[in-house]
Order: sequence, then C-alpha cells, then structure tokens
Amino acid sequence: MRIGVIDSGVGGLTVAHEIMRQLPQEPLMYFGDTARCPYGPRPAEEVRTFTMQMIAHLAQQRMKALVIACNTATAVVLREISQVAPIPIIGVIDPGARTAIKETKSGVIGVIGTEGTIRSGAYEQALKRINPNVKVYSLACPELAPFVEAGISNEREAYEIAQRSLSSFKGVPIDTLILGCTHYPLLSKYIRAVIGEQVKLISSAEETARELSVVLDYKGLLASQNQPAVPLQHKFFVSGNSTVMEQIARTFLNAPLDLEQVNLANQTVCTLPWTNS
Amino acid sequence: MRIGVIDSGVGGLTVAHEIMRQLPQEPLMYFGDTARCPYGPRPAEEVRTFTMQMIAHLAQQRMKALVIACNTATAVVLREISQVAPIPIIGVIDPGARTAIKETKSGVIGVIGTEGTIRSGAYEQALKRINPNVKVYSLACPELAPFVEAGISNEREAYEIAQRSLSSFKGVPIDTLILGCTHYPLLSKYIRAVIGEQVKLISSAEETARELSVVLDYKGLLASQNQPAVPLQHKFFVSGNSTVMEQIARTFLNAPLDLEQVNLANQTVCTLPWTNS
Repeated sequence: MRIGVIDSGVGGLTVAHEIMRQLPQEPLMYFGDTARCPYGPRPAEEVRTFTMQMIAHLAQQRMKALVIACNTATAVVLREISQVAPIPIIGVIDPGARTAIKETKSGVIGVIGTEGTIRSGAYEQALKRINPNVKVYSLACPELAPFVEAGISNEREAYEIAQRSLSSFKGVPIDTLILGCTHYPLLSKYIRAVIGEQVKLISSAEETARELSVVLDYKGLLASQNQPAVPLQHKFFVSGNSTVMEQIARTFLNAPLDLEQVNLANQTVCTLPWTNS
Repeated sequence: MRIGVIDSGVGGLTVAHEIMRQLPQEPLMYFGDTARCPYGPRPAEEVRTFTMQMIAHLAQQRMKALVIACNTATAVVLREISQVAPIPIIGVIDPGARTAIKETKSGVIGVIGTEGTIRSGAYEQALKRINPNVKVYSLACPELAPFVEAGISNEREAYEIAQRSLSSFKGVPIDTLILGCTHYPLLSKYIRAVIGEQVKLISSAEETARELSVVLDYKGLLASQNQPAVPLQHKFFVSGNSTVMEQIARTFLNAPLDLEQVNLANQTVCTLPWTNS
C-alpha cells in the first residue's frame, strides 16, 4: 500500500523526497493542489475544503498512511482528521516542533511560515505542549512560498526576498529557526545567508520523514522486503499547472514521472471518506 | 504516571537526561543495575534475566512507558517485551538506526557497541530493515563502557582508550557513526578527536528521547499541563554501588537526589509482570 502525501503545490515535494530517501521501500502518491496554491493567505474554511478534496481523491486508492506535507493545511485540519482516520496521519508541525526542542540550547526558538500557519499559532501550541519553558518568536513570510512556486529563477532576487522577509528577526536571540513551510527548504541557502551560521535551521521535511518512519514502525506498517530496494514507481497528481512539479520531481526520481492531472474544482466532497456522514 | 528507564548502570543516564530536557513535564524512574554492570560481555540469557528483574521492580509502581536505555539489553529483550507489554516499550537501537539513515549522505554507516550488542547484529538488522541499501561497518569496543562506569578520571587515558578502540575504523569510508552504547556520549569528545570532524556522531540518547516523545504523542500519553514546568522529583534505583550514579545524576538535577538501593540478586523473577504465566 502507498503512503499518501498532500500539499498545496510543490513545497511538499521536499517531504516526499525525504521519505523516498529515508524509506526507500515505500511507494508514494503525491497530490499537489497547484491550481489553487498558495494556501497561506486563504481563510481556514477554504483550506479545509481544498485539503479534504485532495484526501478524498487519494483515499479512492489504497493508502496506509497520510502525510499532510503543508504547514497551513496541517494547522487547519490535522487534529480533525486524526480523530476519524483509521490510518496514521502525520502533519509537518509536530515533527518540526519536536526537533527544535531537541536542538535548542538556549530555549529560544524562531518560527517562520505563511500567514495562515503563523496566524493559527499552531507551532507555538505544539512547542509549548511538549515543553512549556521554551520561548517562541513567530514571523509570517508571505513572499517566500509563492516565489518558490513560481520557480526560483534568480539567485539575487532569492537573497533579497529572504533578507526582506527575515529583517524583523534582527537582534532576536533565537538559536533555532523552524522552517515552518515545506517550501522553505528550497530556499535554505538564502535563509542561512541572512540569518547566520550560528542559528540551527529545522527542516520539516527531514523530520517529518523520520517521524513517519517511527509511526509506521510502531504500528507494524513498515514495508520490509529485506532485500536491496528497487526504484519504485511513485504516483503524482496535480490539480493545475505541472511545469514546476515536473522540474523538481525529475531531479530526484530515477524513474519516468507518472503524473496525472485531476480537476478538483468541480468536486463537492467536503467530508472525509472515513466519516460515516 | 512515570516513565521507566532501565540500564546496566550509569550509561542510561545520558538517555534519562535527554528525556528530562526534551520532555520536562514527565517524571522518571531510573534503574541502574550497578551491581552487575557491564552487561556487554555477558551471555544473552543472563542479560535477559537481569533486565526482567529490573522491569519487574519498576512495574510494581505505575509506569506509562518503558525505555530500555541499554543497547545490550535492547538487543536481547526488546522484541519479546514489546509483544506482551500493554505500555509502549522504547529501545535505543531503532532510534539510533533511524537517525543514522536520516543523516548519512554516502550510505556508509559505522556502529560501535559492546561485544553483546555487536554480536547480536541488532543495529545492522535495524538499519537494513528500514533501508536495505545502506552499508554497515560494526565494531565491538569492550573497553569503553567499563571505563565510563569506573568514572572518567583521566583525560589522556580516555583519549588513548578511544584511539585504541577505534583503530580498525582507519580507512573505512563511513560518514556517520552510531554510538551504539549509552555510555559512549560521555566519551564523545575523545571519540570525535579520534574519528575526525567529518564523521557525524549519532547519540542514541538524544534520539531515543525524541522517539519517546513521538510515541507518547501518537498514543495520547504526553503529560500536558500547559504551564511552566516545575522541577520534577525523579526516582533512582541502583542494585549496587551508587557513587558514580550520584556523581553524574547530581550534575543534571535541580532537586535533591531521590536514590534507593534495591537488591536484585535474590529475586527469582524471570517472567514479565504483564505475562499471564
């Protein structure tokens, strides 16, 4: 059975890539809602509807776990879905929060994300729930995700956007910065240059893949053939433009890209496949 | 309810310390079998009996999860206990293996541990089960754990022992080294000096605490008061000498040390409290 991965667009590919790397025996199916990306500035109810539509599509296939590889969608729907789904649901917020708690020495943690993610306060809640003693500085960076979705074409522009976005962190004594949007690892070079070498950057991507591995393991759901892994055929769905998706996906796939376009806009699915309603 | 942590001696305090740091709301009880340490060179059946005795003692109190903070004991009893226990059982081998898989770029991983751990092949199995493509070099270092249990008194000697123990890794192209014994993080300075800066050291301690956090979270077992954590009163048990235990434990406790000596040698418990036999 496949692991489902959903995102507002291409950002979640950083998570998918890490899952492929850390769990090379697990076939994936990825849905990127490229027609309606970004989710960051949208109202929560809209994000909820769009996310449910993607999940409903993937649930038509057999799926043993679902990764919500979008911080905005995780902030809005994770708790609700976890309560009804018969399969493990992994968001990107708890893994990042847990790792930041492991990494910080000073206990002062920064979080950057979309407006939706930062507005929800989801990272602050996740951090304080595990360790109420940490101090959290959150900052919305609305320019960053759309810039990645457009394809990072200009290095200089990337650096300037990072600098502009992070300017209010100047003088704030964080020792750990959570990249609270799955697009941001694709900009980590520029974020690193602005924020300095002394701050540890936490990528949700790596940590979510690791946490997925823990959960699958404790649930007895790991694929284990105990033989050298062969390249798997992963499946990709997009709701709109597929150009940037193809660009990024090809760079980490050894196999031909199996990509399908699905129109979600006409779907009226607003409840989960697992609920009885 | 407390989290139980058991070890052959003081090595598991590195794990306990990390749990206290990453999960400051969770009270612990720690059992160090200092009368019969080290476990490394002992036959598996003996390690099994000793471990069961410690678990039986802790199970008399209420315990919501158990961490087997000793690689040798994890290698011998983890699977057996996980199958019968009604609470989550966390070993130190899977967390280290999973993190090494996350960290390695070359896919060539080194493991050092006691004779018992290395002989069991437990790390190699854990690594290959998750990613069959990794290459693993294992090395028993029988001198290291007893040296820590004796109290690290001499820096020069520590460096020489590390150098002697790791000499056969010369020329082996690992980029990641698993410290496959909970005593080893206490020697990481010397191991780092011998093995070089370019090799990433994986401490089971940090990673086990993080994995415990994931498992408690997914099982809904996290203590969450959502208020600044007060220093907790942790409990410590030893079966023999408590000098080194007191030395190490005091350095990371803000509260008086609550330590009790328990004679395990007379106990005939060889089955788990959770089995029906």
